[in-house]
Amino acid sequence: MNIKITGTGSYIPSVVQKNDNFLNHYFLNDDGSDFKNDNTVIIEKFKSITGISERRYVTEELTSSDIGFFAAQKAIADANIDPETLDYIIFAHNFGDIENGNIQSDMLPGLGARVKHLLRIKNPKCVAYDLLFGCPGWIEGVIQAQAFIKAGIAKRCLIIGSETLSRVVDKHDRDAMIFSDGAGACILEATEEDGGILAHETASYTFDEAYYLSFGKSNNQDLDPNTKYIKMDGRKIYEFALTHVPAAMKACLDQSGVDIKDVKKIFIHQANEKMDDAILKRFYRLFKTPIPEFIMPMSIGNLGNSSVATVPTLLDLVKHNKFENHSLNKGDVIIFASVGAGMHINAIVYKY
Amino acid sequence: MNIKITGTGSYIPSVVQKNDNFLNHYFLNDDGSDFKNDNTVIIEKFKSITGISERRYVTEELTSSDIGFFAAQKAIADANIDPETLDYIIFAHNFGDIENGNIQSDMLPGLGARVKHLLRIKNPKCVAYDLLFGCPGWIEGVIQAQAFIKAGIAKRCLIIGSETLSRVVDKHDRDAMIFSDGAGACILEATEEDGGILAHETASYTFDEAYYLSFGKSNNQDLDPNTKYIKMDGRKIYEFALTHVPAAMKACLDQSGVDIKDVKKIFIHQANEKMDDAILKRFYRLFKTPIPEFIMPMSIGNLGNSSVATVPTLLDLVKHNKFENHSLNKGDVIIFASVGAGMHINAIVYKY
Repeated sequence: MNIKITGTGSYIPSVVQKNDNFLNHYFLNDDGSDFKNDNTVIIEKFKSITGISERRYVTEELTSSDIGFFAAQKAIADANIDPETLDYIIFAHNFGDIENGNIQSDMLPGLGARVKHLLRIKNPKCVAYDLLFGCPGWIEGVIQAQAFIKAGIAKRCLIIGSETLSRVVDKHDRDAMIFSDGAGACILEATEEDGGILAHETASYTFDEAYYLSFGKSNNQDLDPNTKYIKMDGRKIYEFALTHVPAAMKACLDQSGVDIKDVKKIFIHQANEKMDDAILKRFYRLFKTPIPEFIMPMSIGNLGNSSVATVPTLLDLVKHNKFENHSLNKGDVIIFASVGAGMHINAIVYKY
Repeated sequence: MNIKITGTGSYIPSVVQKNDNFLNHYFLNDDGSDFKNDNTVIIEKFKSITGISERRYVTEELTSSDIGFFAAQKAIADANIDPETLDYIIFAHNFGDIENGNIQSDMLPGLGARVKHLLRIKNPKCVAYDLLFGCPGWIEGVIQAQAFIKAGIAKRCLIIGSETLSRVVDKHDRDAMIFSDGAGACILEATEEDGGILAHETASYTFDEAYYLSFGKSNNQDLDPNTKYIKMDGRKIYEFALTHVPAAMKACLDQSGVDIKDVKKIFIHQANEKMDDAILKRFYRLFKTPIPEFIMPMSIGNLGNSSVATVPTLLDLVKHNKFENHSLNKGDVIIFASVGAGMHINAIVYKY
């Protein structure tokens, strides 16, 4: 028995938020002090580091479970399955549903249950739960679904990664420009076909790293300090990712038995272009192998960092030939990898 | 290989909130209208239906992850294991950490990562994630841990259920009196010892039932309608639970091959005394068997409904002989069962 992704889907929100839209923002340092540079310089520097030109936001009436549902519908259609045959719906997110203009997370019922409701699935044996695991949540959902299939309690699972980070950003923090909204999904199932998941790796670093990403007050000290926003220690995360992500990817590839030269594509969490480039460089350096051309599709320039949604969205775009210079062929070995709040890291080596 | 609970722990919050503490509350109907009866009558009626005399709240400075950590520490000590040997920390909750006086859920980082941080565990292979599955979250965590052990990716897991419902109740809703705070935890591991999990059952009913428990505005129409609280349709939940919980418990027991007469104890989610009594009655009626004495320990009278915490707390109290008229002996077959937001139901048949 092999365990394969038989369908993918994604939802790319319709509101294009260009870097220029931040020109009138009042950015402040963490300590509330003003920047020396004006916004034109701040935004240019931001773009040169992160590679982000624009990002996507959902329209006012949509929440994370809505767009997770849209991605799920597409994945179900792509796999051409009857949704009533799903054994699990695993919904990875970090903040629940947050309505526009609200600061509360609504997770009652859970977002998995909401999507099952929206899909009009009746089968009570289809178990719908929510998984919180930072940005690596979608990959971790695939790893959990694989475990359920191996343990004999599932045959077919839907794994969704959906997030609306636009609802938790601090407008006075330059990091607000990193974050975006999006949703991606896949169907994972037991099959007699060749390929599928060859190896996986997960690690949680919490001893010193637990609060590298956290929920904190606005940089604008005039705002209510009890209202919290997504906050990150970019420098520490960068160093952390460079130390640990290539090692986790290597451990996973070693475990799979696949030669580095046979890896055709690397789908990595879209957090920061420079960081992803550096991770890739270190990863290939561990094998003393040059980096092949077109190995790492990058969506961050136009889609920003949509947390759990970036990897499944990338996969969906490449799978359906909607990504310039990137395509997948049967038998290709690919790697998924992610890093995020926790701090958690994971990777999967997969034969397409 | 068997899969057994080798240690348990719980944290019972220190603030005792008696029914009398609600005498000065201004209770309103869902539509904002006044009740005909005064609070003495409302509270008496409440007590006769739910069986609740008092409930526990955490002190101001504590959050859900704090008390989950306390319960986890005790479970680790009880199992006498080195926490560095844990493969998973699964933290079941519904609302994240909510600070006293705040309405936002803080889940960044996740509560599992917070507990791992507080436990000072260094091992990065100990994967810490959060599971949202309504009140049945702790039982579902045990089921997921079992799957990881069966799939060969874990040997020893910590499963925590922790919740501070006092932070999400609507003071103008009589149902506020049902909810309480608490935390329970266990260590589940692969062992050559006799017994352990014999069977499990999970079901998600979302077609009509998804919003029987939801997040909604206060009954006091003068309050901000955008601030949300835990809301339940008690009548529908009662009917739902009576229809589906006994059937799920029976399916689980049938699957285990154990005779109903050999069941020694039933640990059921503490939501409502009358409801639990009715579930027990229907369950035994399905087997045309009389209900044995002292089969179902009930903590709701003094501890209220602390969601994911009720079942592991009950187990911990009975296991450590802290529950009058109830004890466990090696070889006893016991049933865990829960029902809650989603709507989800689950059950485990377990040989102690």
